[in-house]
Amino acid sequence: MDDRFAGIRSRVEAHLADVLNPFGDGPVAEAMRYAVCGGKRVRAALVIEGARLHGVADDRSIWPACAIEAMHAYSLVHDDLPCMDDDDLRRGQPTVHVKWDEATAVLTGDALQSLAFEMASHPDGAETGAARAELALTLARAAGGQGMVLGQALDIAAETAESPLTLEEITALQAGKTGALIRWAATAGPRMAGDDSGPLDRYAKALGLAFQIQDDVIDVTGDAGAVGKAVGKDAAAGKATFVSLLGLDAARARAAALAEEACEAISCYGQDAESLRQLARFVISRQT
Amino acid sequence: MDDRFAGIRSRVEAHLADVLNPFGDGPVAEAMRYAVCGGKRVRAALVIEGARLHGVADDRSIWPACAIEAMHAYSLVHDDLPCMDDDDLRRGQPTVHVKWDEATAVLTGDALQSLAFEMASHPDGAETGAARAELALTLARAAGGQGMVLGQALDIAAETAESPLTLEEITALQAGKTGALIRWAATAGPRMAGDDSGPLDRYAKALGLAFQIQDDVIDVTGDAGAVGKAVGKDAAAGKATFVSLLGLDAARARAAALAEEACEAISCYGQDAESLRQLARFVISRQT
Repeated sequence: MDDRFAGIRSRVEAHLADVLNPFGDGPVAEAMRYAVCGGKRVRAALVIEGARLHGVADDRSIWPACAIEAMHAYSLVHDDLPCMDDDDLRRGQPTVHVKWDEATAVLTGDALQSLAFEMASHPDGAETGAARAELALTLARAAGGQGMVLGQALDIAAETAESPLTLEEITALQAGKTGALIRWAATAGPRMAGDDSGPLDRYAKALGLAFQIQDDVIDVTGDAGAVGKAVGKDAAAGKATFVSLLGLDAARARAAALAEEACEAISCYGQDAESLRQLARFVISRQT
Repeated sequence: MDDRFAGIRSRVEAHLADVLNPFGDGPVAEAMRYAVCGGKRVRAALVIEGARLHGVADDRSIWPACAIEAMHAYSLVHDDLPCMDDDDLRRGQPTVHVKWDEATAVLTGDALQSLAFEMASHPDGAETGAARAELALTLARAAGGQGMVLGQALDIAAETAESPLTLEEITALQAGKTGALIRWAATAGPRMAGDDSGPLDRYAKALGLAFQIQDDVIDVTGDAGAVGKAVGKDAAAGKATFVSLLGLDAARARAAALAEEACEAISCYGQDAESLRQLARFVISRQT
């Protein structure tokens, strides 16, 4: 099973390199290659494994898989900017605005977002025009001002809010900030096949929240060297997190319960969904 | 004919207001409404008039028309950022990062780009899924790292280049920076109808260059109050422009010849294309 995920990671790297090859060697093209490199590729794995359950071949699902990775990479490049989270380190490497400059980082994020839509609507991805259009439409909604960007805006507003967020508010914030892209990733496969995306959407809704709770756990327990970025920032800033609100043990228990809920949501797929169950277990056990 | 364009402007404003209504009243949603407001709507008019020539009704073409206006608005919000062109004034109003802050401006541009793809792939736009997917795919290519963002990156690189750009280099830069979106706008109609987009693409290629030359003319001859943004910046920065390379009179003559070339490219449409010919004449005669 680990081989399967390692294989997905290699294919994603190779595909992104191919797609970016014609972009030339200017600073933005180089920074795009740099920014999409590395990472755990959880979102890509969700696309490819979800698509497999609906009979969609890997060489088609690689397109939306790389689309969601490009979208995620754009969000990281912009989130790291000095006017946003002001982070110097990402995946153990200097962030784009540190390695190049702020203008290049803004443009690199912008171009990666466009690239995400180019790949989501690519004719070699979903077979029918209707499915390609649906992938682009739903990706736009997941990423935009009612999805990921809204979550990021709520996160920034929370930093200057007079009182810390409640558990309900943090849950809503995370549903946008990380949840929307994770749900899009898990449901891309049934969308490509024109099938019901309900079970995978319920799986992804629980998984996305578990993912974020574990991120908060890592921010408290993790080692910056292993994580590859600054840790302890939220606690230092006095920001409310799942850990600050629930306590460490209860946060871990909640993440585990959500991972269990995710696995139950896809029971209809039987043994075929074992890789997605393993992914759910990985999400709550990872230390980076 | 002026009534026709005024009608398009009103419909675009109303449609964007409708689409943005469910986005709520957070700062990013408010800044999105602010940023898409106003402007000449040349790109929207290109979509709607091009679509009309191919039998596509206005209530369908309004979707890609608003998509291209949202895309254009995002590019202005990011271009105005301190790390980019650092402009305080746009269309006579404070720019987004001045009225709100830099983080909000980054997120607003990001959300407007997503919104552009949501509208380009919207089921109420092009009738077939294939056409909607094609609109999203071609918009992504026009906007991204081989289109508009590449043009913007070349423009920034030119500011610190050791020698000013040549006419050929400026033409290539502008083909990305402004030309790509104008070509997408003019060809969206035939794409929606599944028709040949060749004549409108040739029209838009010439028109886009004429548009940019006139922008350079206005930067030299325009009045900041009327233009609604700073003028004379390029000359003050010693940047090569069509005016600095050709001289004012020859630049004007070149813009006029390109507008004529644009009109000839759509001769196949006969009298039906009169509105697009008027648009070409407007582009080279406008003073703002």
